[in-house]
Amino acid sequence: MLILMKVNATEAEIQGACHRVEELGYRPHPLPGATRCAIGITGNKGAVEADSLSQLPGVAEVIAVSKPYKLVSRDMKPEDTVVRFANSEATIGGPEFAMMAGPCGVESRDQLMRTAETVAKSGARFLRGGAFKPRTSPYAFQGMGEEGLRLLAQAREAFGLLVVTEAIDHLSLALIEQYADLIQIGARNMQNFALLKLAGRSRLPVVLKRGMAATLDELLMAAEYIMSEGNYNVILCERGIRTFADHSRNTLDVSLIPSAKRLTHLPIIADPSHAAGRRDNVAPLARAAVAAGADGLIVEVHCDPDRALSDGAQSLTPAQYDQMAVNLGGIAALVGRSVYQPTAKAAR
Amino acid sequence: MLILMKVNATEAEIQGACHRVEELGYRPHPLPGATRCAIGITGNKGAVEADSLSQLPGVAEVIAVSKPYKLVSRDMKPEDTVVRFANSEATIGGPEFAMMAGPCGVESRDQLMRTAETVAKSGARFLRGGAFKPRTSPYAFQGMGEEGLRLLAQAREAFGLLVVTEAIDHLSLALIEQYADLIQIGARNMQNFALLKLAGRSRLPVVLKRGMAATLDELLMAAEYIMSEGNYNVILCERGIRTFADHSRNTLDVSLIPSAKRLTHLPIIADPSHAAGRRDNVAPLARAAVAAGADGLIVEVHCDPDRALSDGAQSLTPAQYDQMAVNLGGIAALVGRSVYQPTAKAAR
Amino acid sequence: MLILMKVNATEAEIQGACHRVEELGYRPHPLPGATRCAIGITGNKGAVEADSLSQLPGVAEVIAVSKPYKLVSRDMKPEDTVVRFANSEATIGGPEFAMMAGPCGVESRDQLMRTAETVAKSGARFLRGGAFKPRTSPYAFQGMGEEGLRLLAQAREAFGLLVVTEAIDHLSLALIEQYADLIQIGARNMQNFALLKLAGRSRLPVVLKRGMAATLDELLMAAEYIMSEGNYNVILCERGIRTFADHSRNTLDVSLIPSAKRLTHLPIIADPSHAAGRRDNVAPLARAAVAAGADGLIVEVHCDPDRALSDGAQSLTPAQYDQMAVNLGGIAALVGRSVYQPTAKAAR
Amino acid sequence: MLILMKVNATEAEIQGACHRVEELGYRPHPLPGATRCAIGITGNKGAVEADSLSQLPGVAEVIAVSKPYKLVSRDMKPEDTVVRFANSEATIGGPEFAMMAGPCGVESRDQLMRTAETVAKSGARFLRGGAFKPRTSPYAFQGMGEEGLRLLAQAREAFGLLVVTEAIDHLSLALIEQYADLIQIGARNMQNFALLKLAGRSRLPVVLKRGMAATLDELLMAAEYIMSEGNYNVILCERGIRTFADHSRNTLDVSLIPSAKRLTHLPIIADPSHAAGRRDNVAPLARAAVAAGADGLIVEVHCDPDRALSDGAQSLTPAQYDQMAVNLGGIAALVGRSVYQPTAKAAR
Repeated sequence: MLILMKVNATEAEIQGACHRVEELGYRPHPLPGATRCAIGITGNKGAVEADSLSQLPGVAEVIAVSKPYKLVSRDMKPEDTVVRFANSEATIGGPEFAMMAGPCGVESRDQLMRTAETVAKSGARFLRGGAFKPRTSPYAFQGMGEEGLRLLAQAREAFGLLVVTEAIDHLSLALIEQYADLIQIGARNMQNFALLKLAGRSRLPVVLKRGMAATLDELLMAAEYIMSEGNYNVILCERGIRTFADHSRNTLDVSLIPSAKRLTHLPIIADPSHAAGRRDNVAPLARAAVAAGADGLIVEVHCDPDRALSDGAQSLTPAQYDQMAVNLGGIAALVGRSVYQPTAKAAR
Repeated sequence: MLILMKVNATEAEIQGACHRVEELGYRPHPLPGATRCAIGITGNKGAVEADSLSQLPGVAEVIAVSKPYKLVSRDMKPEDTVVRFANSEATIGGPEFAMMAGPCGVESRDQLMRTAETVAKSGARFLRGGAFKPRTSPYAFQGMGEEGLRLLAQAREAFGLLVVTEAIDHLSLALIEQYADLIQIGARNMQNFALLKLAGRSRLPVVLKRGMAATLDELLMAAEYIMSEGNYNVILCERGIRTFADHSRNTLDVSLIPSAKRLTHLPIIADPSHAAGRRDNVAPLARAAVAAGADGLIVEVHCDPDRALSDGAQSLTPAQYDQMAVNLGGIAALVGRSVYQPTAKAAR
Repeated sequence: MLILMKVNATEAEIQGACHRVEELGYRPHPLPGATRCAIGITGNKGAVEADSLSQLPGVAEVIAVSKPYKLVSRDMKPEDTVVRFANSEATIGGPEFAMMAGPCGVESRDQLMRTAETVAKSGARFLRGGAFKPRTSPYAFQGMGEEGLRLLAQAREAFGLLVVTEAIDHLSLALIEQYADLIQIGARNMQNFALLKLAGRSRLPVVLKRGMAATLDELLMAAEYIMSEGNYNVILCERGIRTFADHSRNTLDVSLIPSAKRLTHLPIIADPSHAAGRRDNVAPLARAAVAAGADGLIVEVHCDPDRALSDGAQSLTPAQYDQMAVNLGGIAALVGRSVYQPTAKAAR
Repeated sequence: MLILMKVNATEAEIQGACHRVEELGYRPHPLPGATRCAIGITGNKGAVEADSLSQLPGVAEVIAVSKPYKLVSRDMKPEDTVVRFANSEATIGGPEFAMMAGPCGVESRDQLMRTAETVAKSGARFLRGGAFKPRTSPYAFQGMGEEGLRLLAQAREAFGLLVVTEAIDHLSLALIEQYADLIQIGARNMQNFALLKLAGRSRLPVVLKRGMAATLDELLMAAEYIMSEGNYNVILCERGIRTFADHSRNTLDVSLIPSAKRLTHLPIIADPSHAAGRRDNVAPLARAAVAAGADGLIVEVHCDPDRALSDGAQSLTPAQYDQMAVNLGGIAALVGRSVYQPTAKAAR
């Protein structure tokens, strides 16, 4: 159920409608649009008393939502969501293509700084890097923890980047909120609903990776978990699904990009590195994702991939990343996107 | 790396070897076997100083383990693990086939008690029932929480059952440790490594469900996460994988059962309910799993499936469950298993 | 569309109804049932003039069929189809469980005779063996061709077996009709519709293997192709599907067995050898398929598997086959099946 | 095994080496390269007598091939294969991007001519259109047969297009050789090895579609079947694989494109129509395939998609096709491809 406010509804009328929803025992989710505001209603079992809402001042219409997801739906918000940041011109979901790059895991100050500097120079606005690594083996490198977050924060200051890093539980999430700019939820945790709810109560935007066997509907429902808690800045991420195919680590499902965009207003980016699993396929998959309409990319880059503690085989060298970024600019332009060109200052 | 103790090694020699492992900075995992004890070593990076260990009193041999999993491996412990319980004759992994049955979710005292009574009469030793439900939609019934656990504990007392219920995060896990007998880790959390580590520090046995897209190796590595923290009572569970096939909710991969048994000493059970997704296929899949060598089953039974708040379509009625249990007894006997026949007292 | 005849309809009335269907420009498919005959109608585009048919003598009812498959449907023929053979007591789909066994490929007279003799002694009624082998590589052994068929026919005479062997095109099919008793259509040809139509014009029953990525509906439609040409003796075969799982060659989808039986009257058997891909998993999968309700099995057995020219790794030795057959007898009995016990004469 | 001739080897020396291979009882496959000729050897069991070949005049080296495929391998022929046609400037695998477009099935003269005219105007060099349709249901439109081929030949004359159409058996293949310019082998027949061998004896190039569950190795081996019979003009085609994903008809596996190009010299095109299954996803997938490095596209276009007898939902209108072709031109240029711009005459 959602309330569509009139084009000229006042802020007071919007608040009034929200207040009435709360009085009915439900939760209102006001989502401002380009021309008018919609208010999603969750917490109801079955039909809401539409009549009592449709007569409120400023309300244009009360609409039943037939899909299992509500807040993620384009029915709720026809125009694209653009995620913005307080101290940066970077956006996700707007006209500028969003480049996120960096190492799989933070391994040392030197490794991180060297890598961050080069990706910033190549136009990335976002620095990726794991401080808490969900590894298949309990005996593999599990990340540097809070020390890794500190290094990420230093790299942010040094190169003017925004930091995106993965949360794996309530403890890491709380730390990430202190140090980083975006929370990443990994593919293995896409249906860790407890973690999704916690992320939904955070003030930071969330990059939500598609699970290896998740349908589009399940991905949207996972995003709905986050939004239903009040965090409306969710970025979907296609990173390859598990199939029988054995020539790539995962199968990048590019058709998810246009299919998701029809159903949801949320931005969607792609991770060609985890899909490819090998360095020489990263650029072709990145180009394909841009051409299919992705809003951004998250790419693994390492200053010395052959010595990486994780995912070295699929990490680009800084030079490879730079070359790829140049090529992508052309394709992005053809599908109506601008690409950020760092000035000397930004990338210093 | 593992230390194989001599057949006649004393308890003091075993403790001595463990102590020496700790001195080297690693973690010892003594796993007693039928004839002799093995001590797994984790926490090492690369090779352990085998020489200094092989000369200790009572040590027969120090063996390098080539597989990525160590403690779950049959190399470590050739004989089957049998999970036992303090106040019950029930076992998992021994000669007696382990039947776990009950509703998908605990919905009310009446629903739980009625269902528990019938499954106890039909020979189930274990009562399943979710108090914390990981649901695809944030708007679906999320379980009764601690109140559900209290009801499960009451049913345990009333019918002499052991309770198995799902943990979804650190909070629910802590509560489950107070009320239940086994912790279930659901398919969606099979690679929630933070949760696996917490379960590894619990005193309760853990039923670990295979993820929808998990390979056998990944399932074993998830079990290794739990064991590496010191909890050696892990029960694997095949519950169907996600494939293109659309005639069942998931595809029960019966070949996982004998394949797992070759590699690991851990028990493995099957969940025909989630695999089937429809009531009329549950019994055939249950029979198939028993025939393939499963150590037990976990089955959804509801006293009134058509009114169930979750998974009603795949829940058996008590009468259907009883009939199925009788049929399974014959097949179990043919593959060398006994089936528990409740006395009047036990099922009262 | 199908015509349901009255219980006491005469043969002349059945023929009259078929004649009328032909006059309308369609094709009648009379399928006799236990109590009454049904006549399937194919070749119509859209609705048939039901009125003119429903008034014919002996006609009880004219029923529209909503499913895309008609002749394979239980709507058309509620009772199970039992495939019978002219000079043998063997059946497929009746109370007796159907065992088919033999080498992957016919390699020599000695290999075939030795294998055939042992499987006959162990109770197999059917001898499998490929003369035309669809191999992934053009450079791999492609089968002995007609000479292989001659050897199969000799083994049939020597041991009283019925021969099932694979057709790969119109030429091999024509030869198989001269030498064998059942035509096998392999998984790779399940949607080779030209071959299905040819098999539909044969007088021999057809074993139709499920394609590696075929849904149940597609399998049923492939069977419909055969039946629509007039050959109503089709035996479905589950042989494992392709999934991400890497511990077995294919994933045996046991749930297909009960799911198919709900929709179709055709028998369904299982091929545990191709599903397993390794000898030690064949028996567990065979037991699972029997327990799930399969009407028979087709199993690879080789007198000297380690020297087999194809599929040696998944072929049982004669001794392993014999042991498995004994075990299966017990399970078959529990699901209401008898198992053929050869007399001295039959197995000579 | 392959023979690498010297750069300055004469034609007589090449023929001499081929002759010697035949004398040894094997089959030589001379594949001329940009700088020198290689001669593949097939028909050998195990090692070939390399010594007797390496000493022949003009022979530089005799190389063992470790992969299961030989003739398709880049080891055999490092430079890209470019497929050329007698009476056309069109190529596949060269600098010019190859556009194939047309209806799923030929339905009538009017439908075909109208569609062909528009795609020719939009720059397609190749007209697709099925005369023999492999349909899931025996009751669905099966194609116009030879009459469809005649219409395709008329469209070729009228608009200067090359015709690609699907063969489903030996009969249709023989007819197609009379009327068309390329033979298509459909996904369902990718492992119909009898058909592959027949196509291998044809003088026409073959478009080989990847099976729905085929690995890259299996696709290459299917191409090897065709090449081993002497037809070296094979074009691979990625058309989407079958996965659990339900938002598209199939999952376009764009990573196959660069992965195949590393292993084989054969061209590879993509079919976005069958992958998408719905019109509005065709253009994004087409862009992705071009960006990933495909050598061409085969696209379903229908002058009146809503009245199409097959695949209407995924067929573009001529206007949609024209718009897509323009967009693709820009991306193709960015990855180093030219796109054919028809002159007034060509498109008349």
